[in-house]
Amino acid sequence: MAKVGIVMGSDSDLEVMKPAAEILDEFGVAYEVTVCSAHRLPRETAKYAETAIDRGLEVIIAGAGGAAHLPGVIASFTTLPVIGVPIKTSTLSGVDSLYSIVQMPRGIPVATVGINASANAALLAVSILALKDPGLRERLEEFRQRQAEEVKAKDARLKELGIERYLQTRG
Amino acid sequence: MAKVGIVMGSDSDLEVMKPAAEILDEFGVAYEVTVCSAHRLPRETAKYAETAIDRGLEVIIAGAGGAAHLPGVIASFTTLPVIGVPIKTSTLSGVDSLYSIVQMPRGIPVATVGINASANAALLAVSILALKDPGLRERLEEFRQRQAEEVKAKDARLKELGIERYLQTRG
Amino acid sequence: MAKVGIVMGSDSDLEVMKPAAEILDEFGVAYEVTVCSAHRLPRETAKYAETAIDRGLEVIIAGAGGAAHLPGVIASFTTLPVIGVPIKTSTLSGVDSLYSIVQMPRGIPVATVGINASANAALLAVSILALKDPGLRERLEEFRQRQAEEVKAKDARLKELGIERYLQTRG
Amino acid sequence: MAKVGIVMGSDSDLEVMKPAAEILDEFGVAYEVTVCSAHRLPRETAKYAETAIDRGLEVIIAGAGGAAHLPGVIASFTTLPVIGVPIKTSTLSGVDSLYSIVQMPRGIPVATVGINASANAALLAVSILALKDPGLRERLEEFRQRQAEEVKAKDARLKELGIERYLQTRG
Amino acid sequence: MAKVGIVMGSDSDLEVMKPAAEILDEFGVAYEVTVCSAHRLPRETAKYAETAIDRGLEVIIAGAGGAAHLPGVIASFTTLPVIGVPIKTSTLSGVDSLYSIVQMPRGIPVATVGINASANAALLAVSILALKDPGLRERLEEFRQRQAEEVKAKDARLKELGIERYLQTRG
Amino acid sequence: MAKVGIVMGSDSDLEVMKPAAEILDEFGVAYEVTVCSAHRLPRETAKYAETAIDRGLEVIIAGAGGAAHLPGVIASFTTLPVIGVPIKTSTLSGVDSLYSIVQMPRGIPVATVGINASANAALLAVSILALKDPGLRERLEEFRQRQAEEVKAKDARLKELGIERYLQTRG
Amino acid sequence: MAKVGIVMGSDSDLEVMKPAAEILDEFGVAYEVTVCSAHRLPRETAKYAETAIDRGLEVIIAGAGGAAHLPGVIASFTTLPVIGVPIKTSTLSGVDSLYSIVQMPRGIPVATVGINASANAALLAVSILALKDPGLRERLEEFRQRQAEEVKAKDARLKELGIERYLQTRG
Amino acid sequence: MAKVGIVMGSDSDLEVMKPAAEILDEFGVAYEVTVCSAHRLPRETAKYAETAIDRGLEVIIAGAGGAAHLPGVIASFTTLPVIGVPIKTSTLSGVDSLYSIVQMPRGIPVATVGINASANAALLAVSILALKDPGLRERLEEFRQRQAEEVKAKDARLKELGIERYLQTRG
Repeated sequence: MAKVGIVMGSDSDLEVMKPAAEILDEFGVAYEVTVCSAHRLPRETAKYAETAIDRGLEVIIAGAGGAAHLPGVIASFTTLPVIGVPIKTSTLSGVDSLYSIVQMPRGIPVATVGINASANAALLAVSILALKDPGLRERLEEFRQRQAEEVKAKDARLKELGIERYLQTRG
Repeated sequence: MAKVGIVMGSDSDLEVMKPAAEILDEFGVAYEVTVCSAHRLPRETAKYAETAIDRGLEVIIAGAGGAAHLPGVIASFTTLPVIGVPIKTSTLSGVDSLYSIVQMPRGIPVATVGINASANAALLAVSILALKDPGLRERLEEFRQRQAEEVKAKDARLKELGIERYLQTRG
Repeated sequence: MAKVGIVMGSDSDLEVMKPAAEILDEFGVAYEVTVCSAHRLPRETAKYAETAIDRGLEVIIAGAGGAAHLPGVIASFTTLPVIGVPIKTSTLSGVDSLYSIVQMPRGIPVATVGINASANAALLAVSILALKDPGLRERLEEFRQRQAEEVKAKDARLKELGIERYLQTRG
Repeated sequence: MAKVGIVMGSDSDLEVMKPAAEILDEFGVAYEVTVCSAHRLPRETAKYAETAIDRGLEVIIAGAGGAAHLPGVIASFTTLPVIGVPIKTSTLSGVDSLYSIVQMPRGIPVATVGINASANAALLAVSILALKDPGLRERLEEFRQRQAEEVKAKDARLKELGIERYLQTRG
Repeated sequence: MAKVGIVMGSDSDLEVMKPAAEILDEFGVAYEVTVCSAHRLPRETAKYAETAIDRGLEVIIAGAGGAAHLPGVIASFTTLPVIGVPIKTSTLSGVDSLYSIVQMPRGIPVATVGINASANAALLAVSILALKDPGLRERLEEFRQRQAEEVKAKDARLKELGIERYLQTRG
Repeated sequence: MAKVGIVMGSDSDLEVMKPAAEILDEFGVAYEVTVCSAHRLPRETAKYAETAIDRGLEVIIAGAGGAAHLPGVIASFTTLPVIGVPIKTSTLSGVDSLYSIVQMPRGIPVATVGINASANAALLAVSILALKDPGLRERLEEFRQRQAEEVKAKDARLKELGIERYLQTRG
Repeated sequence: MAKVGIVMGSDSDLEVMKPAAEILDEFGVAYEVTVCSAHRLPRETAKYAETAIDRGLEVIIAGAGGAAHLPGVIASFTTLPVIGVPIKTSTLSGVDSLYSIVQMPRGIPVATVGINASANAALLAVSILALKDPGLRERLEEFRQRQAEEVKAKDARLKELGIERYLQTRG
Repeated sequence: MAKVGIVMGSDSDLEVMKPAAEILDEFGVAYEVTVCSAHRLPRETAKYAETAIDRGLEVIIAGAGGAAHLPGVIASFTTLPVIGVPIKTSTLSGVDSLYSIVQMPRGIPVATVGINASANAALLAVSILALKDPGLRERLEEFRQRQAEEVKAKDARLKELGIERYLQTRG
């Protein structure tokens, strides 16, 4: 049964939201993916959020762009933690999305991550789920370790090759 | 029966929204005033919008600040024209409110006015209602005329008194 | 006889304003399209707005970019509702257009929609015209219904195909 | 034993962070409050975060202003969920704090709330802790209920008194 | 006969525009002061600009705030140089005014000065008028000289008194 | 002898500044073009400005990007009117250039035009020079007339062809 | 003999720049304070910078607001390290100052600190001078130590008193 | 032994940071290049900074993007001068990086250069090192001289060829 709901306002956001799914796959966390617009499907959005707890969800990741109401609207219909992903827009680069998501009124928070940062939204979901699941905590520590090793490996390689050759071999 | 609904996300917005009511009073347009948070009362907000047409409303004026979802959420539940008033915030001066209201996705428009510009929201409502009511159109033309005369009177007074004395007598 | 006037400051705005015309076509609302610069043709702009009511217009949609004065200048010469479309600019992305249109002084409102959101401007015009035309209200409800169905269909398809295949078949 | 760590970069942030403590008091969630600068006490900050799990913390709420590194630095030393509160600054109003906190690189998320929104940070912490504690979930639902009732009461009172008297009696 | 027209959109701009008049007084340049709103008095604004050359004006200084169309509208009705003064606004601090004035389309320039910088607008007008009036050029050189001497005097005084006493005696 | 000096901080600005020269060519106004960095050639920049009057210049057009000091530095060394052209930058889109040019301190104005708006800078220079040269005023009126006719012609063509064919034939 | 030059564009910047002097006093670093406007005293500014090395200066701290050219102009006349302090402005809060100082063209850097952060400018100067002066390095380490102790003391006091009493005793 | 440490948060920043290395090569200043993320390798970052003085470094150049903590975190672990290079981001163009680096709290300065301006960071490092190395000062003066000559040569060439041919031959 899915523990994380990934929901987005439009299928045009799917490319940006995909890394969230990939991270959850990597951690073995079950999730469901939904396209559901706060404005074009307001009743379905309400229902999605109202039934989330009963459907077994524990965290919801919601991505939206522009006047990005989806995360906040979902948060108003459930007490589950809702993570908002502001999607970059062609006009205002996602500042509109960011402000629409992060500046929620007192009483209904949305946990906002960076613009287009859906992978971080999933990692945040994992860190939340890990509070109940020591195995997940362990995998998160390993993930951090691996990512540290990757930076170290790049540094070693850069020191070995020098800037010029590093850039060439990477390119 | 109220033709215009004035709705705001919090009673702390009332001072800013008051000029909308005063303009409608001046034009003899019946209205109702409601405090109804998109996030704290999502079901009531939905119901407010869904029943608006049946209650006889023809235009809705919605003011909200921060992640200002109220106008957009109302617009998603009704096909009446919705006018959004971005409320100035203490942190981002209302840029957050403006972006959250004006950048609506394709399909669900909100007619946005300037930050804190509730009087203009009401005048816009009047210009919309005037499409069905020639008397209202006339009063709107008179309002424009009066406001033009006021500027002319100030100009005449400034030309008579000079800058220094004009500022003193105004102070 | 045209009920909606679509006007823009330059023919370079035509691509952006075209969806407004397409929406009005879809709803069977008669309109006229005009290129008329507030700065390069100020007298013609004034005349356009002053004669709008007599020509039968009920709503004006005005698009402009940069120091985008066209919607406000038109609004100063008519009491019809004026909808402003801020056009994206190559330098400031349309923030200049948005501020120039939305921040109108008390007394002369412009109903502002999102940057480049000409389709929403037309939908707003339709929702205004629908106040006098129940058939139009019905078509607007159907439009909302269709657009809701489209999102639902995409969601169903995504759930069936999964992210990877959905993105491939869409691409 | 404290479940939530509230930490801030300077004691000048205490006034802004106080509502977080008040919310946790209201929910009966144990917490500890710490002043610990990422820049002036970098080793203590690292230690604070590294030992957080062993000390029994489950969520960390970190507030900081300007080049607000504290939440991100703490997140780099622990896999616990870290909630960042951007503090309003006298020069850039907290946009600097917001960008410094929310735009974290891939791999190390910070759950960001609105500028100065420490109460929401605490409510987010409660919603996370409620995943393990059904009693907390219940109290959160009640909190939502109460806050909904408060808005309804204000609306009823406004409808009874009218705008003018409502504002007078509130003042 | 007035050579410079100082015009502003509202008498609430008078305090900000006053230094322009004072500078022109100091230089012995005749001017007229007018309150004339581009939006509330569009026909009068057009007439003001159309008759400016015949009335003997050589430069126009126009101050406006918000969706600040006045300078651009005047420029569209005359080929005289128009200097725009963006007025600081309570919501967007004058960024809206600045963008509305400076981002004029190709063909109709407005010479924009800093936000609230009406004194600089007048000095710019003087430097333009000085092209035909060597005496004015001379007075402008003297003004620059005096203003240089003032800075030098302050520097000498600061060096003599030290920071602490300088601040005390100034206070 | 050149009446207008066109100066830019780098030859990479030449493409953007070229329309200024073309406008001056069109009006038959003699000009000189100079590359002279305020920062890389500070002494030459000072000398350029100090000798401008003696060399016969009457207006200086200065374009610069980023921390765009060139217009202001030139203005500090001459009492001629200086027109600043903020050049678009790859990082901040020219907002940095705009603020660096327009926000000059009291005493030393720069007449600022829009980002990359070098053609308008030249038209502003022409309107200034026209104060002494009735023939130039006449050509400026004709320029305005021609540009008005061009918009009218486009409007007529659009009305004849319709949107679809207009866009096709233009493409 | 002064090792650090503190220079500002106006004596109105003195209050903001004072902490730089206090920090240098605390470290026993000799300095001189100068008011010298890049725009009102361009020749003196050039001379100030050209003679800086011969006068024994090793670092220059320059504060300026608005179109803040002073740090960059000084940097163009000397190869000494120049530290720029963007001064907060009443209109754009210092964003204008920051962009005008930090976005220098390739070839002439300015070491920019935060808006109004003159104390940090002085600490940066000290860290530079410490490269030649081990005693200064030591005092800088002690300064860091003291400032760390102060935060620790505040934390201990907060833990002892609790939030409420801490705020009361501080007030 | 390396005198300058060039460090960056990710190898994706290498292209932007490369000019810093090239400038140091040109000046014959030894340097080391390191990839070390403040967030993914916090302990190594701390160690890098803590051992910098003992390893012989005298200046550290740190580039980072987004919530760009690297320069500030390094500065918190060493008293060496740290120069921060804000890296342009795909979403916020580097405004996020700039604010995260320049707005450091009192006590821990970072010498910030323009967005992507790594060459200037290196020139600033050279100007600092030149305080102890007269030969380096000389080379810096020559560098300035050369760069001045280049601008002069371009100006001469432009004057010879005219705008059109200059642009063609450059292209």
